[in-house]
Amino acid sequence: MPKVEPRTLPGFMELLPSEQILFNQIKDTIEETYKMYGFLPLDTPVIELSEVLLAKAGGETEKQMYRFNRGDTDLSLRFDLTVPLSKYVAKNYGNLSFPFRRYQIGKVYRGERAQKGRFREFYQCDIDIIGDGELDLINDAELPSVIYTIFTKLGFSDFTIKINNRKILNGLFQSLGQKENSVEILRIIDKIDKIGKENVVEELRKINIDDSVINKIIDFIEIKGTNSEKIEKLKSLGIENETFNKGIEELEFVANNMSLFGVPEENYMIDLTIARGLDYYTGTVYETFLNDYRELGSICSGGRYENLAEYYTDKKLPGVGISIGLTRLFYKLNELNLIKTNKKSISDILIIPMTEDLSTAIRIATKLRNQGIKTEIYLNNKKLKAKFKYADKLEIPYVIVIGEDEIQNNVVKLKDMKTGEEKEIPMDDLDNIKLFLK
Amino acid sequence: MPKVEPRTLPGFMELLPSEQILFNQIKDTIEETYKMYGFLPLDTPVIELSEVLLAKAGGETEKQMYRFNRGDTDLSLRFDLTVPLSKYVAKNYGNLSFPFRRYQIGKVYRGERAQKGRFREFYQCDIDIIGDGELDLINDAELPSVIYTIFTKLGFSDFTIKINNRKILNGLFQSLGQKENSVEILRIIDKIDKIGKENVVEELRKINIDDSVINKIIDFIEIKGTNSEKIEKLKSLGIENETFNKGIEELEFVANNMSLFGVPEENYMIDLTIARGLDYYTGTVYETFLNDYRELGSICSGGRYENLAEYYTDKKLPGVGISIGLTRLFYKLNELNLIKTNKKSISDILIIPMTEDLSTAIRIATKLRNQGIKTEIYLNNKKLKAKFKYADKLEIPYVIVIGEDEIQNNVVKLKDMKTGEEKEIPMDDLDNIKLFLK
Repeated sequence: MPKVEPRTLPGFMELLPSEQILFNQIKDTIEETYKMYGFLPLDTPVIELSEVLLAKAGGETEKQMYRFNRGDTDLSLRFDLTVPLSKYVAKNYGNLSFPFRRYQIGKVYRGERAQKGRFREFYQCDIDIIGDGELDLINDAELPSVIYTIFTKLGFSDFTIKINNRKILNGLFQSLGQKENSVEILRIIDKIDKIGKENVVEELRKINIDDSVINKIIDFIEIKGTNSEKIEKLKSLGIENETFNKGIEELEFVANNMSLFGVPEENYMIDLTIARGLDYYTGTVYETFLNDYRELGSICSGGRYENLAEYYTDKKLPGVGISIGLTRLFYKLNELNLIKTNKKSISDILIIPMTEDLSTAIRIATKLRNQGIKTEIYLNNKKLKAKFKYADKLEIPYVIVIGEDEIQNNVVKLKDMKTGEEKEIPMDDLDNIKLFLK
Repeated sequence: MPKVEPRTLPGFMELLPSEQILFNQIKDTIEETYKMYGFLPLDTPVIELSEVLLAKAGGETEKQMYRFNRGDTDLSLRFDLTVPLSKYVAKNYGNLSFPFRRYQIGKVYRGERAQKGRFREFYQCDIDIIGDGELDLINDAELPSVIYTIFTKLGFSDFTIKINNRKILNGLFQSLGQKENSVEILRIIDKIDKIGKENVVEELRKINIDDSVINKIIDFIEIKGTNSEKIEKLKSLGIENETFNKGIEELEFVANNMSLFGVPEENYMIDLTIARGLDYYTGTVYETFLNDYRELGSICSGGRYENLAEYYTDKKLPGVGISIGLTRLFYKLNELNLIKTNKKSISDILIIPMTEDLSTAIRIATKLRNQGIKTEIYLNNKKLKAKFKYADKLEIPYVIVIGEDEIQNNVVKLKDMKTGEEKEIPMDDLDNIKLFLK
């Protein structure tokens, strides 16, 4: 028979089982934490009407969409989880309780140019809190504590949640008469780490910004110090702009309350250059960095928006949210060998029966499973060596061998596959198997 | 601003949060059970090359595929999880340990005619055990115990796992010289419950089957009795066909071993009319029915196949698997009000702070979360009544109120939202919060 080559599309992650176990552990940690803070689960379709997804999209996003017709219907695959959330809240407004706290973990699709570490299908792990008409600013201070909990649980300690407030940037540009140029200016100052201050000044001159304005911009982005020092310096700039001052007030409130929510001082920082896109966010913005691996970029980002679903409804629905791009994060952590988990197998114990009669093996497996121990019985007729090799390759930590002698003596042999240590355990003691496992 | 109507496509399930919680509880039970038996996780792309998915498909499946071009590439959304598994095993053969036991829970796509209870996007929850060259028959007896565990955990007891062996049907038709007509004959005898024996005979005559053959077919499908009586009657039919007799032998072995694997006699049954499609399965086949709700059809089906990946590789890869069509199952159970779960909320406790200073509320929330209690703080400035209404609507079982008095006296007020009962708990006792919850 002629064969078809079993290919997977480029840009689509497909893992080997041992990697998939690690991936799922990270995904489960994120989901468990979201639930621990009382976020409700949501699952929306991967396919939506193009009209619905495009209500707001445009530009690059639209070009990257997987869009196709089926019959007369113009369909697209979702490119994020925020637009489906907007649709969902507008559609189900009357059936939801506000503030509506939801999490969603799911695949999204963007037909980006394929390159290493870029994915066309990837998981986003989002939480959002949506208010009906209004949403208290204190919510902006709670989300970083969720980020902090997740990355701490994943074994990281040296990471920084950077926060800023878009009103500060918007107010600054307004006060400098640069509202029209703000997109361009942000793009340039965003490069300061890479190209240095002189080149930033040069580029700002090229787009015809006055030197007096440039000086004020540079003064602004060069503000340094502790979080409270930054706030004080912002206040002392003497910029008389309502939006700007509102931004300072909000940023100060959020920064102060983050520590109340349990984020240690060393894990967050005001960074006045963070903007996160241009249209969407209207207040607090977040980015998160692993300090030793800045090249990963932000591993968890988000912010406050004024109006979630304005393209679908007249209801005003302000919200705040964060998102983890899990597929890319996993790819990078795996590449850098930074994934800290304790277990690469699913099964805790492999039972190897040496007799034709499997009843003892099955009885013991049931007993172990009832204690929450993931247990597999090796069911195929192979040599003992092959059976142990199987446990070895799957990195199953324990093997129980049950032969004629063991059944006769009412014991089992438990082998620790890591240390090689073997001990005999009376069958009755298997009711407390956890006492024998590390 | 002109609004876009926030619509969801017909045939795509999108649940309200309280329903989504139930859905996820069922999904989690299935996944936890699969893991408890040591199946490895797998996650393959939703989009594949059409060429890969179509290596084997054809007929109805091909017409139902979501297929589209992007650039020059002919893409399709997966319509099941078996074809992606075949591709995966062929592609990664050298990196897998056999028997390869994997589970996959994911969405698949079929552009069926939209009608009530039919979905175009739906979850399949699959397990398969794949052997390299061969796979012992005992594996066929283990899978029903996984089905049994899942449906028992979901609160069902009156269900029947029906088993058969395709070799028996194939052998019977061979011995009757009806190999060519087997598809048509199976289609007709499948209707016996609905149309009765006389009409089956009539329809078989219409396709020109001899009365002597019809009699033998009727004798066969009318075999009744206990499982062992059925086996005895099959043996006594005196059909001298190797395939037929091999089928009886396998069926007897699997049925006998199912009870060894812990499936009670009352939960399984040999049913000689079960065929499960025509090309794919080659040995054991399974279907599962809720006895009081036969109209749901089979809620978990599968079987043994000779060669998983023959369209991609020369390696012989026999396997056995089962699949639960979760979306349709959930829809039906929900419609019939048959979902037995204990909890419709995510949060276990809602903390309502009555003071402007949130530090006590946050400290307590952290303490509860560290004990695994899902805890939400009501963070918005509303009247107490609105806060309680929120807990009520989300069916959060407990509320903790923290006001000035409580902080002064170092206690909290815990309210059981179901009974209305309130008690004061010393803050120190919150280290053992579980003692106070039902």
